[in-house]
Amino acid sequence: MEGVDHLAHERSKAQFDVDQMKVVWVGSRHALQVSDRIARLVASDPVLRKDNRTMMTRKELFKNTLRKAAHGWKRINELRLSEEEASWFRHYVDQPAYTDLHWGMFVPFIKGSGTEEQQKKWLPLAYKLQIIGCYAQTELGHGSNVQGLETTATFDPKTDEFVLNSPTLTSSKWWPGGLGKAATHAVAFARLITDGKDHGVNGFIVQLRSLDDHLPLPGITVGDIGMKFGNGAYNSMDNGVLRFDNVRIPRDQMLMRVAQVTREGKYVQSNVPRQLLYGTMVFVRQTIVADASTALSRAVCIATRYSAVRRQFGSENGGVETQVIDYKTQQSRLFPLLASAYAFRFVGEWLKWLYTDVTQKLQANDFSTLPEVHACTAGLKSLTTSATADAIEECRKLCGGHGYLSNSGLPELFAVYVPACTYEGDNVVLLLQVARFLMKTVSQLPSGKKPVGTTSYMGRAEHLIQCRCNVQKVEDWLKPSVILEAFEARAIRMSIACAQDLSKFSNQEEGFAELSSNLAEAAVAHCQLIVVSKFIEKLQQDIPGKGVKEQLQNLCNIYALYIIHKNLGDFLSTGSITAKQGSLANDQLRSLYSKLRPNAIALVDAFNYTDHYLGSVLGRYDGNVYPNLYAEAWKDPLNESVVPDGYREYIQPLLKNQLRNARL
Amino acid sequence: MEGVDHLAHERSKAQFDVDQMKVVWVGSRHALQVSDRIARLVASDPVLRKDNRTMMTRKELFKNTLRKAAHGWKRINELRLSEEEASWFRHYVDQPAYTDLHWGMFVPFIKGSGTEEQQKKWLPLAYKLQIIGCYAQTELGHGSNVQGLETTATFDPKTDEFVLNSPTLTSSKWWPGGLGKAATHAVAFARLITDGKDHGVNGFIVQLRSLDDHLPLPGITVGDIGMKFGNGAYNSMDNGVLRFDNVRIPRDQMLMRVAQVTREGKYVQSNVPRQLLYGTMVFVRQTIVADASTALSRAVCIATRYSAVRRQFGSENGGVETQVIDYKTQQSRLFPLLASAYAFRFVGEWLKWLYTDVTQKLQANDFSTLPEVHACTAGLKSLTTSATADAIEECRKLCGGHGYLSNSGLPELFAVYVPACTYEGDNVVLLLQVARFLMKTVSQLPSGKKPVGTTSYMGRAEHLIQCRCNVQKVEDWLKPSVILEAFEARAIRMSIACAQDLSKFSNQEEGFAELSSNLAEAAVAHCQLIVVSKFIEKLQQDIPGKGVKEQLQNLCNIYALYIIHKNLGDFLSTGSITAKQGSLANDQLRSLYSKLRPNAIALVDAFNYTDHYLGSVLGRYDGNVYPNLYAEAWKDPLNESVVPDGYREYIQPLLKNQLRNARL
Repeated sequence: MEGVDHLAHERSKAQFDVDQMKVVWVGSRHALQVSDRIARLVASDPVLRKDNRTMMTRKELFKNTLRKAAHGWKRINELRLSEEEASWFRHYVDQPAYTDLHWGMFVPFIKGSGTEEQQKKWLPLAYKLQIIGCYAQTELGHGSNVQGLETTATFDPKTDEFVLNSPTLTSSKWWPGGLGKAATHAVAFARLITDGKDHGVNGFIVQLRSLDDHLPLPGITVGDIGMKFGNGAYNSMDNGVLRFDNVRIPRDQMLMRVAQVTREGKYVQSNVPRQLLYGTMVFVRQTIVADASTALSRAVCIATRYSAVRRQFGSENGGVETQVIDYKTQQSRLFPLLASAYAFRFVGEWLKWLYTDVTQKLQANDFSTLPEVHACTAGLKSLTTSATADAIEECRKLCGGHGYLSNSGLPELFAVYVPACTYEGDNVVLLLQVARFLMKTVSQLPSGKKPVGTTSYMGRAEHLIQCRCNVQKVEDWLKPSVILEAFEARAIRMSIACAQDLSKFSNQEEGFAELSSNLAEAAVAHCQLIVVSKFIEKLQQDIPGKGVKEQLQNLCNIYALYIIHKNLGDFLSTGSITAKQGSLANDQLRSLYSKLRPNAIALVDAFNYTDHYLGSVLGRYDGNVYPNLYAEAWKDPLNESVVPDGYREYIQPLLKNQLRNARL
Repeated sequence: MEGVDHLAHERSKAQFDVDQMKVVWVGSRHALQVSDRIARLVASDPVLRKDNRTMMTRKELFKNTLRKAAHGWKRINELRLSEEEASWFRHYVDQPAYTDLHWGMFVPFIKGSGTEEQQKKWLPLAYKLQIIGCYAQTELGHGSNVQGLETTATFDPKTDEFVLNSPTLTSSKWWPGGLGKAATHAVAFARLITDGKDHGVNGFIVQLRSLDDHLPLPGITVGDIGMKFGNGAYNSMDNGVLRFDNVRIPRDQMLMRVAQVTREGKYVQSNVPRQLLYGTMVFVRQTIVADASTALSRAVCIATRYSAVRRQFGSENGGVETQVIDYKTQQSRLFPLLASAYAFRFVGEWLKWLYTDVTQKLQANDFSTLPEVHACTAGLKSLTTSATADAIEECRKLCGGHGYLSNSGLPELFAVYVPACTYEGDNVVLLLQVARFLMKTVSQLPSGKKPVGTTSYMGRAEHLIQCRCNVQKVEDWLKPSVILEAFEARAIRMSIACAQDLSKFSNQEEGFAELSSNLAEAAVAHCQLIVVSKFIEKLQQDIPGKGVKEQLQNLCNIYALYIIHKNLGDFLSTGSITAKQGSLANDQLRSLYSKLRPNAIALVDAFNYTDHYLGSVLGRYDGNVYPNLYAEAWKDPLNESVVPDGYREYIQPLLKNQLRNARL
């Protein structure tokens, strides 16, 4: 049966141009061509195989990761890949490694926070990987509260040096990826102290290991922090611990773009506005949202294909059973996640544009939109990563028992994904930042200050707090304007209710703390509105390809109505819709699922993932699941011998009732 | 600082008798004494250590599991432990092993389905572990739909034997625990065929491996199915694959309590009613609900203690930061889970009673309550396992970054727990069974048939579909009768709405399929009502101990109001409460959290878990988290050398720009 496509029948049912949808998904014809070529290149490279990962010990896995990183770098240079191609290459290698932090945090941070001179010195070294950098911020006792970091960098005017020190156990750097074993350098964050005065947290470039023999430099204690969730997942990464015992670095290794320490030890702000640094944060969070749609789409691709392969119940007289994808319970759990993958893709695309836009504004010294951009990226990071983590686990459950096997790919995808809910801002902490911004925006409404960007709907507060949804029949729920207004009404009413509750407190900070749970819910409502509205905006563009736009319209409606159903309490309690309208939305949702059904496989094919990248027996492109599950089983080390290791010592004496005298 | 209790201050704040709460949690003073003694025995046994599990390879882990099982059996015999003590012992060993299936499935199934003669033959062998049994039901292509199993057992009248065969790849047995490497025998399920006629699925005792050398018997292909979620978790279990190539077993190895095959090959029902077999299912699911509260309480214990240790933000002028447990966002996520642990414990306790009750009724040939009991156990299994799986992951997130470390205990707890959502009935399939029963109950209301047990509230349908919740102020939400009526109204109104929607379909099965998502939601509403009502019933008992009942009352209210808040859409759309009342419930919830706060640590201490059993650095009883996290890190194999294995091959040439000629 080699080469047979078990899903061919499913593919033939598609009502749209899959190739054009691939272009929409990845962003452009050019991006599709490049990514497709590089994905196949990676998939065909035996050094980059992934299917043996879960059988490795931690040490083997880590060594294998070093090998892949070196091999990847070699191939990138040999093939003279462009930066775009190299970035796709690293993406498809799909194994967390020190290179992620080097390219994703160390380099961008020096670019953003280093002076021109510093950039000239350090970036060429980093670009050529003559040094390996990591980003050492989080400490054992300090994560979200960056201002609470304890590591100190004390200026010594005698030697023109900073002395880095870890004064307490809780000040040990803890978590930075690449730090444990690989990095030669770090951007390390420490409280700057000059002349006995604490100037708060600043970044410093610190060499950690000798470039000759990789041994830690004097005063530096460094190591790996140990096993993490999953058996592959992030265990390929050397998240590290680092302690400084009065380590000296030259003064010019403080990153001095926005603030400097002079030769005399004076702390001075430069003329570069601090706000410029936010650009990096917007960039990083924009990447995280894009990654969310990628992770989610992988999980959905696996679960959708397997749901078409798996059959259960529904056969009469020994006939063939029903494909589980045909059950409404399966559809109502799976299809909203498929729609979410597309929704997050488009909001991520929009964030990319927003980053470019805000960067231009910052460079023109226009900081006016920064708070809104900051709130919006923080909120979308929170919303999309939380939803994606939950969705991956839901997809695993949708694969029934077999989803629990490592070779389904889903356990590892979950384990490798979930840190996204915590790193770069804990998701709840971020929602509260959004809420703070929303409360400020609401409080300024009476003054006539016009809300900008994603909050501009708040400028129509008067209308939105008294408007009534005019859905009367199921089809009314297909109108974008109706959906949008319901989401806007719900979001603003929740914000205003919070603001009113807050106003009853004499101490605003106490009120904020007391009501934080409600505030977080209001922030979620605001962020869901952004996702829906950006999806709707996307559909206002010209989208070529037979049936492509129709499919996207269907997905957009599914996403929106699913969010309404899931958060019905919000919509009803704010009076944004009525119970009857909620019930109509739910009815509409069911018929949208039926419309999606014949296109389901083609819609996940449009992600254009290779079997190598998916890494799932259940999600194989050809749907040939069972023979491959069976074949994979025999590869487990436990099957190397028919009688297991330990039989003589621990099973035989037990069965023979001879345990009494055994030494166990 | 050895021996210092960092949580002493928290413990001193408790407003109730913790020792009495321990009794309530575990069920009796006697159970507390026994479980406490055995827990300490296990914790102090060096063979039973767990902290090194995640560093083992699969083979090492499995061998270690065999060792623990043999050692445990030896100790149980040496110490002449009673069955109660032995069962606590196995519980605290806390590592999935073949013994779970031997004691939990193989033995009970022979008891339930074997004739007296069969029991006399097989049970003594099983009790003395002279044979190791497993339960081989699920097949590669068949899980939920037991009637779809493909394995055949064909009676051969010439030799008076059954011939077991695996006719297709998808008929391979797949998943049974203990099958892969350890079991000598199985209860295997196969389609019984006599004289060319298929009599459906029956159970057979089949020897798999030689008792002399443990080699598979002729015609049997058996092995392990490979790695599963997590790195420890269920990888200590040899979930197996099994194929029969015309394997012959004597006729008397068909389990013949309810149906027999005669010497002539005639299939005859015995006079034992088939319904008796349901007793085993009720028993197993009752155990699963009890396990849910145990798993949930472990996760909550870890997250609660660590939330009291962890501090973040809120310090002014460098003072000490705020304990994260004092944040309302933390409380609103954590405390409902603490309440759920108690709620599930009490509903589990009640299910234990129900099992005894139904067993007595079955023995008296009274099958009247069986459908209700079946629906109720299926629904509670689904509800509690789904909630627990989600809650463990939520607890992990509540521990921030450090929850992602294996030694937090939470990743492994999650990975080892989640299969409970799938085994013994997929949770969604079970909800649909409940829904089917609810629809039947509703349809019989007009005929005057009185609903029994957990559905008896449906007898008051007339009142419940038109009653109005009369909550006017926050305190009204503390009245059990008010809470109960709101839950009853919501549940019955959702059921009746489904029934009405169903009645619009000419084909009921089609209607059921189309509306299955709504039906599942109605089933959840019904099951949540059961949990709430059993908690309220528990509080009507006499509960000794200073402040114990008050704490439980608080937890009960938190559970109920949290469910209302989370499912507000249901309560509002059915008109069971108003938006204003929903908002009051939420306000009340906040003040209940404040009441719980000083008792939080004591309430998790009442679970009486040893540090060994918890297996979490973050959840340590003494709260001494950071020094222990730091110390644990250095034990990782990656830290055996300062310079990592692979440096010479993969890092040095890269840094020195000498990759070009390297062989990688």
